[in-house]
Amino acid sequence: MNDVSELESLRISDDEFNHRIKTLQNKIQENNLDALFVFSSEAEPANVRYLSDYWPNFETAGIIIPADSEAVLIIGPESLTYAMDRSRLKEIRRIKEFRESSDPEYPDSALDTFESVFDEITHGEGVKRLGIVGSNIITLPVYEAIRKVIGKNTVVKMDDILISQRMIKSEQEIKILKKAGEIAVHAAQAIIKVAKPDMTEIELLAEAEYSMLKEGAESAGWSHWVCSGPNTKEAISRPTYRKVKTGEIIQICMGPRLHGYVSNASFPFVIDKAPNEVKKLINAGISIQNKTKTVMRAGLTCNEVQKEASAYISKNGWDKYILYGPAHGAGLMECEHPFVESTCKLMLEPNMVFGTDTFLYTKEMGVRFEDVIRITKDGNEQLSPYKAELIEL
Amino acid sequence: MNDVSELESLRISDDEFNHRIKTLQNKIQENNLDALFVFSSEAEPANVRYLSDYWPNFETAGIIIPADSEAVLIIGPESLTYAMDRSRLKEIRRIKEFRESSDPEYPDSALDTFESVFDEITHGEGVKRLGIVGSNIITLPVYEAIRKVIGKNTVVKMDDILISQRMIKSEQEIKILKKAGEIAVHAAQAIIKVAKPDMTEIELLAEAEYSMLKEGAESAGWSHWVCSGPNTKEAISRPTYRKVKTGEIIQICMGPRLHGYVSNASFPFVIDKAPNEVKKLINAGISIQNKTKTVMRAGLTCNEVQKEASAYISKNGWDKYILYGPAHGAGLMECEHPFVESTCKLMLEPNMVFGTDTFLYTKEMGVRFEDVIRITKDGNEQLSPYKAELIEL
Repeated sequence: MNDVSELESLRISDDEFNHRIKTLQNKIQENNLDALFVFSSEAEPANVRYLSDYWPNFETAGIIIPADSEAVLIIGPESLTYAMDRSRLKEIRRIKEFRESSDPEYPDSALDTFESVFDEITHGEGVKRLGIVGSNIITLPVYEAIRKVIGKNTVVKMDDILISQRMIKSEQEIKILKKAGEIAVHAAQAIIKVAKPDMTEIELLAEAEYSMLKEGAESAGWSHWVCSGPNTKEAISRPTYRKVKTGEIIQICMGPRLHGYVSNASFPFVIDKAPNEVKKLINAGISIQNKTKTVMRAGLTCNEVQKEASAYISKNGWDKYILYGPAHGAGLMECEHPFVESTCKLMLEPNMVFGTDTFLYTKEMGVRFEDVIRITKDGNEQLSPYKAELIEL
Repeated sequence: MNDVSELESLRISDDEFNHRIKTLQNKIQENNLDALFVFSSEAEPANVRYLSDYWPNFETAGIIIPADSEAVLIIGPESLTYAMDRSRLKEIRRIKEFRESSDPEYPDSALDTFESVFDEITHGEGVKRLGIVGSNIITLPVYEAIRKVIGKNTVVKMDDILISQRMIKSEQEIKILKKAGEIAVHAAQAIIKVAKPDMTEIELLAEAEYSMLKEGAESAGWSHWVCSGPNTKEAISRPTYRKVKTGEIIQICMGPRLHGYVSNASFPFVIDKAPNEVKKLINAGISIQNKTKTVMRAGLTCNEVQKEASAYISKNGWDKYILYGPAHGAGLMECEHPFVESTCKLMLEPNMVFGTDTFLYTKEMGVRFEDVIRITKDGNEQLSPYKAELIEL
């Protein structure tokens, strides 16, 4: 177990939360909005967590940010005591459409509505121009409830204003991501320490989950997996009862969440000697992963990075094995903006954080290397401290 | 570790999956629909899992079921190998709106669309009347993509047809829930075995997660927690770095997922002696929980159960401490239809499965008892095998 006072000292301060809201309010005013509505779900908590530290469980959540008065956290009917203890925003209202997705009726609860909250923040004037963040995950009932109140007034998708604000990480965010990186690597190593033929993928995962929580992760950053043999072809996977064997790829995908921030330590290992085909695929993964890290630095654009990485992949004849890559933003989600894709012209800046992400697969097997880096002036710094290498136990 | 072949023998058969689709297709025809669209998310996988055994990770998922031809699983761009290995439906298509919620662009992927899939299943005729299941969780982009293709044709919310189908459990579903119940109780007991003052809530949770995976759970059935002292007021919670103390309530909320089905073993314990106020609240919880189980049997309606349980609570003066209850459906979700609420006139039938759920709280602390029962002709059978009692270590 890490020292609890050290873990607690990493928490983002109230001042930093206030600053985030103020920065966003400036943009709300610049965009002539009366208010911004930010939506998050249990599986995609990032935006609400970023602004309030609150993370829904079972229910969904939102934040209504007026242009110049206090922001309001919106929760479902059952989370009031939880939200009061955790939210940095002190104004909290409950609206039925944020209830848990199994859809209970709550016949006896007295709840707020979008109408009552919009009235409250505008002193009865109503919201004439509303921005929405989280438009790609907002549920239909929440959107319809907003639409009903807004009527013919304007609703604008404003995801970009929060994406750009979250993209450059603060010193405190970097500190948290470093600690999360340590926990991630230790969790992956906990698997390697005990792995034996005939253990199931789920059994191996148990070791990592235990290590991660014992060291103070608040949860998994996503639904983790260990997969093996033919299952390693699955770019996205979940662990099964398959028993691992010698000489095959065993893939660890691991990213603990700490104070909201998600790390990543994903790499393969082999029990006993790796046969030639296995060795070739793993070594290709290592080369590409290292190449990506050689390329990424402040001053290049995302598509320049993508071009250089993909030229290297082509030159080596690995095109047909690659699903995507070479990197995507990381922070409050395992994967967030920006994406290092051919369509992205954004320039890399210091303290942007990325998951460098190589996934290769053949008809028989696949392999992923992923870790978290911070962009620096001259290059990058790895925040999940391990070296991509061929691991044979 | 449970025996893997025993765990695997519990899997729902292909025949049972086929039967589920056929049953649903009869209702699709009765309702004069051309097709039904079923939506699920990572946090609410139930409906898609019920019909395909597939459970999205990172992405969302859907199923399009024509009135009389083969059902099609819809996934996002990254899950094809995963879905091919896990889905019982062999027709799989990728549509961009089901991509992971961080919203990458996938500039180089050739994907299907709702238009191409609707054309395919209707041989170019188009869908004139579409039913939707999962209307309370469907995301706006998926709904808008459907609306764009459907145009002025009809979209009908049809959640009820799948809710009623899922409500009565099969023998195989009951077997899985029994095994999941065993794993849940063992996981909770793993905490009690090691609990000592000054361990954090997260550290205690580590023991349960480890036990659960070692015994073959595929994952947590929801984001589990252990909470303690004042944190027990949180009806919904997440574990923290708080160090547990003697004489206070320590609450375990635990429900492993096995082959998709979620159990529940939630109860409190106290290290050392429970002071009077603690003992009173716990004993009230035990009495209410036992009362609910005495009441629930086939032939009563949900609101009759609710009335009897709440009369008992009133008679004892506990009204002001109770948040909700006394029970809700359980199965593929910790909480699903039907809800034992004052508004529900549905009649209890054998092999309906419920979480009996008592949550009481004062200004200082709270307590939850929850376990899973199956309705029988004469009463009910507990599927998570523990006895609600005052546990003092």
